[in-house]
Amino acid sequence: MKVYEIHDGFGLDHVQAAERSVPVPGPHEVLIKMRAVSLNSRDLGVIDGFYNPDMRLPFIPVSDGVGEVVASGEQVTRFKTGERVSAIFTQSWISGEPTQENWVSTLGSPLEGLLAEYAVLPESGLVHVPDHLTDEEAATLPCAGVTAWHALVEEGNIKAGETVVVQGTGGVSLFALQFAKLYGANVIVTSSSDEKLDRAKEFGADYGINYRQTPEWDQAVLELTNGRGADHIVDLGGSATLNRSISALRVGGQISMVGVLSGVRVEGFDIIPAILRKARLQAINVGSREMFETMNRSIEQSRLRPIIDTVFPFEKAVDALHYLNHGSYFGKICIKF
Amino acid sequence: MKVYEIHDGFGLDHVQAAERSVPVPGPHEVLIKMRAVSLNSRDLGVIDGFYNPDMRLPFIPVSDGVGEVVASGEQVTRFKTGERVSAIFTQSWISGEPTQENWVSTLGSPLEGLLAEYAVLPESGLVHVPDHLTDEEAATLPCAGVTAWHALVEEGNIKAGETVVVQGTGGVSLFALQFAKLYGANVIVTSSSDEKLDRAKEFGADYGINYRQTPEWDQAVLELTNGRGADHIVDLGGSATLNRSISALRVGGQISMVGVLSGVRVEGFDIIPAILRKARLQAINVGSREMFETMNRSIEQSRLRPIIDTVFPFEKAVDALHYLNHGSYFGKICIKF
Amino acid sequence: MKVYEIHDGFGLDHVQAAERSVPVPGPHEVLIKMRAVSLNSRDLGVIDGFYNPDMRLPFIPVSDGVGEVVASGEQVTRFKTGERVSAIFTQSWISGEPTQENWVSTLGSPLEGLLAEYAVLPESGLVHVPDHLTDEEAATLPCAGVTAWHALVEEGNIKAGETVVVQGTGGVSLFALQFAKLYGANVIVTSSSDEKLDRAKEFGADYGINYRQTPEWDQAVLELTNGRGADHIVDLGGSATLNRSISALRVGGQISMVGVLSGVRVEGFDIIPAILRKARLQAINVGSREMFETMNRSIEQSRLRPIIDTVFPFEKAVDALHYLNHGSYFGKICIKF
Amino acid sequence: MKVYEIHDGFGLDHVQAAERSVPVPGPHEVLIKMRAVSLNSRDLGVIDGFYNPDMRLPFIPVSDGVGEVVASGEQVTRFKTGERVSAIFTQSWISGEPTQENWVSTLGSPLEGLLAEYAVLPESGLVHVPDHLTDEEAATLPCAGVTAWHALVEEGNIKAGETVVVQGTGGVSLFALQFAKLYGANVIVTSSSDEKLDRAKEFGADYGINYRQTPEWDQAVLELTNGRGADHIVDLGGSATLNRSISALRVGGQISMVGVLSGVRVEGFDIIPAILRKARLQAINVGSREMFETMNRSIEQSRLRPIIDTVFPFEKAVDALHYLNHGSYFGKICIKF
Repeated sequence: MKVYEIHDGFGLDHVQAAERSVPVPGPHEVLIKMRAVSLNSRDLGVIDGFYNPDMRLPFIPVSDGVGEVVASGEQVTRFKTGERVSAIFTQSWISGEPTQENWVSTLGSPLEGLLAEYAVLPESGLVHVPDHLTDEEAATLPCAGVTAWHALVEEGNIKAGETVVVQGTGGVSLFALQFAKLYGANVIVTSSSDEKLDRAKEFGADYGINYRQTPEWDQAVLELTNGRGADHIVDLGGSATLNRSISALRVGGQISMVGVLSGVRVEGFDIIPAILRKARLQAINVGSREMFETMNRSIEQSRLRPIIDTVFPFEKAVDALHYLNHGSYFGKICIKF
Repeated sequence: MKVYEIHDGFGLDHVQAAERSVPVPGPHEVLIKMRAVSLNSRDLGVIDGFYNPDMRLPFIPVSDGVGEVVASGEQVTRFKTGERVSAIFTQSWISGEPTQENWVSTLGSPLEGLLAEYAVLPESGLVHVPDHLTDEEAATLPCAGVTAWHALVEEGNIKAGETVVVQGTGGVSLFALQFAKLYGANVIVTSSSDEKLDRAKEFGADYGINYRQTPEWDQAVLELTNGRGADHIVDLGGSATLNRSISALRVGGQISMVGVLSGVRVEGFDIIPAILRKARLQAINVGSREMFETMNRSIEQSRLRPIIDTVFPFEKAVDALHYLNHGSYFGKICIKF
Repeated sequence: MKVYEIHDGFGLDHVQAAERSVPVPGPHEVLIKMRAVSLNSRDLGVIDGFYNPDMRLPFIPVSDGVGEVVASGEQVTRFKTGERVSAIFTQSWISGEPTQENWVSTLGSPLEGLLAEYAVLPESGLVHVPDHLTDEEAATLPCAGVTAWHALVEEGNIKAGETVVVQGTGGVSLFALQFAKLYGANVIVTSSSDEKLDRAKEFGADYGINYRQTPEWDQAVLELTNGRGADHIVDLGGSATLNRSISALRVGGQISMVGVLSGVRVEGFDIIPAILRKARLQAINVGSREMFETMNRSIEQSRLRPIIDTVFPFEKAVDALHYLNHGSYFGKICIKF
Repeated sequence: MKVYEIHDGFGLDHVQAAERSVPVPGPHEVLIKMRAVSLNSRDLGVIDGFYNPDMRLPFIPVSDGVGEVVASGEQVTRFKTGERVSAIFTQSWISGEPTQENWVSTLGSPLEGLLAEYAVLPESGLVHVPDHLTDEEAATLPCAGVTAWHALVEEGNIKAGETVVVQGTGGVSLFALQFAKLYGANVIVTSSSDEKLDRAKEFGADYGINYRQTPEWDQAVLELTNGRGADHIVDLGGSATLNRSISALRVGGQISMVGVLSGVRVEGFDIIPAILRKARLQAINVGSREMFETMNRSIEQSRLRPIIDTVFPFEKAVDALHYLNHGSYFGKICIKF
């Protein structure tokens, strides 16, 4: 079978096509013919050696994907041949709270990923996906979808009528936008691009704030909420945004710490404003299989469709990764097999 | 001012118009010129002497209503003259969990009600109502709206994609239907009338079950959920429905015990089926001011409009009560001043 | 190896010793040399054919036990030879909320039980047990301990200073007493025996109510709590106790529906008193592996010791079951290998 | 009556005795003859003008105190003359979640404080205190006690067997130690003084870490928890401790951000370690009246006694404040009238 590997060194230049033999499922495992994957910025971090400098090469990257069951081990009961399945990102996190042990079971590092014609995974690490989604739409769910769901629904306990701020228009942010609208919330999106803000409004955003033009976007949020502040803020920026997120929060509100797009370290994090808001800062690290399944029921019920920027063919997988690295996109980048 | 009183004995025949002087607000109180009230079956129970056989007469009934602030005590800060306000049902339940003491502060018994041209209430017992609602729509919220919100959102933690069963098409049930749809849930309504089921579908119900034709409606719910059972059941029936509600519930699901339309006592309540489902039976008794305010934000954001059956003029208030007693209605019965 | 089987028909008379060959663990399984089991009234229900009249015989009963790992499948990572382990009751319920599927994985029916010199179980269905416990003490935990923990801690969110009512002095009740005291709660025990009430006080109970002498024990609870009512009631009685449990509850309190000692059906369950207390009736069906592990940490930290009535040798296993059936015991009945 | 005022400028040198007339309670208010107050470092911040540089002088400082009801307004129902009461810190936060409006109702700034022979407060802002406490013990509860209770119990949902880290031996830390032990938790205390660590052990601490000798106290916590990390960390340090608190936390654990003893700004707050632990950082700002009452029930039930360092007579109130400013104390500093 054809795969893409981080071949003999780190960096995008070292990702190349290769041949491997089709793997054989063990008793509790399933062989999946991949149909589509979606990309996350984490995949670039893996390729660059940022996540694990000691990773053994060659290594198949990319964590999120969907495919069809083509063979099953003899003990498999949850899936049948011909069914469409998605891998879950944290393979061993089934339900409840995570544990330290779960973190070593994530796909695309340390476990090999899905940028391959076939993959073998334990049946416990798979879920069915909503029928109305295309393969590439279904492939967007494991990281971006589950993270947004976990942040707003599972930890955030989002309620209709609340105000949610989402930062930017990447995958997690757009899922957060869509889920917040599904729950009857009021959504404010921040972006450096008016064009993207306009597109976000097409998908239901109530307000857009261009943080280039309005660097004090926290003040804008306070004005839009009559001084009350936002109930939830999905913080994707990290270093550049966290203090302003707290300033834009209502008393008793929650910030989901999801990303570090502007940097991993906040130079000067102010504690007093957090205390004055009884702020909750909840770090989010994707989610469990149970969350994925609960999210899927909501996507099925609402006929929600994930937002896709571009779909590349499998032959152009490296181009897709370069596009992820340099492009200015709105929604998810996918690869179709 | 003109009022209606339970005059010299219990029963609808003893409700009659009377004159009283307009009350004067104390330092923390507000004088409200009533604009609309809505009726609840509880009001009939009060009038019939069922709730409190020792009630001192004459007594002004009816708990739910909306009006305009026309005068305020000198210490009042939360409201201004000209603002539209709704009374909260449990006057002293502001937020958090209820206490025994809260129960003696409910309007329409033991505290006098709102079927009067003017009423005086403490500012702590009032909330603003969404601007887009008519007076009679706003008047439907205090009991029926808050009860449904409390059941599904505050205690039920409803999630998009879940399945909710609502019994009948009275006020609480239709609010539960509307809130469940607002949250992206799948809603099954039960009724004895196909016509009412059709109307419920117009308001978003996904499925209707006529329990006359299908007395084993619990089996129908299991079929509609592929054997999984409903996540939430808003139980309005009481004696005739509770065992079937448990049978229709998913493992880990919740039944909100809200009403006793078919009787106050379950003759033969089976515990084993409840244990086999890890069922939660959560009794609901209206809700707090904070819940009311949170609900209002969701109604405002979603432009939701309460469902009204009929609006009577203040002069026909007794007719409205008779209609509540004998009519077959769909949604709330209101009285406009 | 020697086992006890429900041999050729239901009922205690059909439980007899037999020989089977020692089972061999599969790749993810562990072979356990049993050291002790504890008995639950459920075991009698299984033996009597009450739980599953279609059960295939012969069948090894008894769900709860502890033993030593003596061999492991090649894929086993959680346990090593020589370690002491306890089986979890619901083998497939690892964490989070239960599902319908979990219920078919309970030991002692439908899965065969542990009244055998050796047993094979998947490593996912085992936990370590606190070192300071004897084998027979450790054997009491899987059903009685986890049920009480689930009721008070996981669902009940028990707080120091709250009042807990536990009914009777069986295994679940005494664990509930011990956990409640560990959490700094005030504990009221009900029993028909003054002698047992005295013993419960030795283990920390603050008050005892003899419900023979005081059939209106709910009034006694209200008096002991200055009219406020109990925060938690662990209801073991079922048919004879549920209405009184509601009457003894504080507004906003929780009843854990755990048992049906006095009958499975409440003849005349009153809904209005439940609504007037905003009561939560939470059915409890043992618990997850994660709850077991969390409970174990608390037992380890507090050096808590389970309360044992009698320990029988393995040769007298049938006598132990008869004693469970007819005896008047205080705490758990165990069998030591 | 005699009072102490921040008289004509900020700073401890400007705190001096003065005479004022005894205030008169309004209809819903109570006149309290003060018996004891306790000091918090916040009181120094108020005196130094740090909290509110625009504060109108003269101003009576000190937020926490207990006294006896000596007169009541005509509408007062919650208290009687002769009863002992404590003020709640956030006068308008009764129950549920806080709001922006609550923050302007805190005693000792912006509302005048209790360092006076008499004080008038609304009955809604008072609670009874446990009988077994001395006046000075009771006076320690409003800020330090409620903050620790809120952090560990209300938000932290502490469970027996969990591990709690408390930083230092000030008032909040020692209450956190005592409550954690009351709940059957394992407690690790950090301090720069071996002597204080020894005293903490006398009050139940399981382990002490001297962070002077072991600056990498986070590593020590990991070792003491077999690599698992602490379930709860009560962070009092702020700038110097937050990153290490995250490093010492278990996956899914909670840090209560309570204090800023080492500085209000974290220079270099790392987000990735928080995400890798799914950390929750929960800011805590004292608590509601309902929390205070719930805490009191637990103190009453357990006969817990707050830890006091020194009691000064009212005449030496300024000395007490100087001692708070410069002294090395273990537990609360109180002033007795």
